[in-house]
Amino acid sequence: MIVTNEDRMACSAHLSADGRSVEILDQRQLPNREVWLKLHTAEELYEAIRSLAVRGAPAIGICAGYGMYVLALHEETEDGAALLAALERAGEYLISSRPTAVNLAWAVRRMLGVVRANAHRSAAELRELLRRECVAIHDEDIEMCRKISEYGLTLVKPGDGILTHCNAGPLATSKYGTAIGPILLGKERGIEFKVFSDETRPLLQGARLTSYELQRAGVDVTLICDNMASLVMKNGWVQACFVGCDRIAANGDFANKIGTSGVAILAKHYGIPFYTLGPRSTIDMDCPTGADIRIELRDGEEIRSKWYAEPMALPEVKCYNPAFDVTDHELLTAIVTDRGIVYPPFDVNLKKLFEES
Amino acid sequence: MIVTNEDRMACSAHLSADGRSVEILDQRQLPNREVWLKLHTAEELYEAIRSLAVRGAPAIGICAGYGMYVLALHEETEDGAALLAALERAGEYLISSRPTAVNLAWAVRRMLGVVRANAHRSAAELRELLRRECVAIHDEDIEMCRKISEYGLTLVKPGDGILTHCNAGPLATSKYGTAIGPILLGKERGIEFKVFSDETRPLLQGARLTSYELQRAGVDVTLICDNMASLVMKNGWVQACFVGCDRIAANGDFANKIGTSGVAILAKHYGIPFYTLGPRSTIDMDCPTGADIRIELRDGEEIRSKWYAEPMALPEVKCYNPAFDVTDHELLTAIVTDRGIVYPPFDVNLKKLFEES
Repeated sequence: MIVTNEDRMACSAHLSADGRSVEILDQRQLPNREVWLKLHTAEELYEAIRSLAVRGAPAIGICAGYGMYVLALHEETEDGAALLAALERAGEYLISSRPTAVNLAWAVRRMLGVVRANAHRSAAELRELLRRECVAIHDEDIEMCRKISEYGLTLVKPGDGILTHCNAGPLATSKYGTAIGPILLGKERGIEFKVFSDETRPLLQGARLTSYELQRAGVDVTLICDNMASLVMKNGWVQACFVGCDRIAANGDFANKIGTSGVAILAKHYGIPFYTLGPRSTIDMDCPTGADIRIELRDGEEIRSKWYAEPMALPEVKCYNPAFDVTDHELLTAIVTDRGIVYPPFDVNLKKLFEES
Repeated sequence: MIVTNEDRMACSAHLSADGRSVEILDQRQLPNREVWLKLHTAEELYEAIRSLAVRGAPAIGICAGYGMYVLALHEETEDGAALLAALERAGEYLISSRPTAVNLAWAVRRMLGVVRANAHRSAAELRELLRRECVAIHDEDIEMCRKISEYGLTLVKPGDGILTHCNAGPLATSKYGTAIGPILLGKERGIEFKVFSDETRPLLQGARLTSYELQRAGVDVTLICDNMASLVMKNGWVQACFVGCDRIAANGDFANKIGTSGVAILAKHYGIPFYTLGPRSTIDMDCPTGADIRIELRDGEEIRSKWYAEPMALPEVKCYNPAFDVTDHELLTAIVTDRGIVYPPFDVNLKKLFEES
């Protein structure tokens, strides 16, 4: 399949029409205001990433790739070595905006690698190579999402109810997204689903981002509180659960946004298939099981007071605020990747996924 | 056991020290401000009940009982028939403040019944009978909570982790509460538990009320988002779940705050006992199964925009906001009532609970 410039421009991070800045949809202001920011300088890029104006691992990588190109454009030198030195400084600075974002460092280093491998060329030639590279980073992500979406679409029937948790849609990735991909690809083809979006406390990504994306795409979406998933399933309204993944262990256990494991347990109880969708790169064959995945603990104020005019609990009350949980592979019907659908036994079949290609 | 005036004064609705008004803790202002309101007039009582300054079925009943007495005190007549007529008018008015609150109508009618059964007596005598009756309503509730708490306490060991959902503590009832009762009774006896309180979206009763009550009582309480219960259980931190109940069907299915059924499914998955606690009067033997319980649907704005400076989802996004769900009796370890603990088979053993006494 061919990625068009229209595909790219529809994504939440892309090169502006004049090709001289990175354009991003400011996710901090959603769903109430759709503000596109044009980022020209290293400082603007740094601040956008740090403050979560752009978020979602693939989207950050795409933004950083374009960012390195735009910085090369604005660097006033015709000397290739001087350009490399300037980009190395800028790259380190950008990486420091979110040190734990793997895709950020990966994209910056991939862009720097192009310059280093072509150190003998002129700055003008290097700029053209960088332009191609950042477009390639973006196009590869779009292709990957499209493949995941194609595989995912084979798992559901028109009219099915699909429950999702957190945000693994286009805002976090590129066109289609991962967990949301089959729904949006289906919509393009006239296949309608009824989607239930968990609001996903405490940061409410399901409300602010997923229900926004789906509504804007014309999908039939209903927002629910996380604790309503059981009743929605009991009502017979859900035929499949689609969720994203942050890291998949070699045995199929996987980490995703807090609450995912609860959805999986409910789905098993009600006999509903439960899928996680993500690129093959999410699978960490060096991580044997979910027990080896460390869970990030975040500030309890996200539960007690974030979003509110006044705190909802006494200041002395302890809050436990894990950002992720690990879903046991026994609760998982299949893993949907850009390289195909992996069924149990996951320890055997995930290994095959890497051997085959 | 004897109910003392100190027991009564510790409750969130009671007769003021001078005996001339109803004193309630304004639950709308918790947890940030502890404001006690003194209610003297029918209008003040009406508004307090309507606006949820007092909430929780038993607490509303207690407030209404005291309210009818206070109104009798302030009614300037020495004629018993005139007093009855005035109280009948006031009672109808109070009942209209929350027409679906069963305990409200029940308490008002019980107070009116005392006047009607003693119509030949003077207003002064009637006032004294009314004072005794409203104190009896309160004392019976305290006794009932105490019995539930005693039975519940036999189901846990010192140091156990207990997970609870929504609010079934003293604010909603009287001293001890129902689901929270064993924890507070244990605390009185020097038995410590580690409590996890689901925040309970969308109205956040677990954050605003339960964690407040437990913290004030010196109990070790940790607030979590509803979607964190699965991880907390997986961590091995929960040895029992205690929840309240709004209505129990003859087969043991029961309705409670939305999300309760999800907690029950998680508890079963992790092999944790799951109990509901409530007075025998919550059991409706005329309701065969949970399928016969209608679920109240509430305004979607409670999910989208309540509590927030700005809405968290687009105005066009549908919100599904059921107030309750029904937990299947097969998920229930036992029902803890003021008349004893009922184990499966519930259809047989609930019947026995009514035959025995």
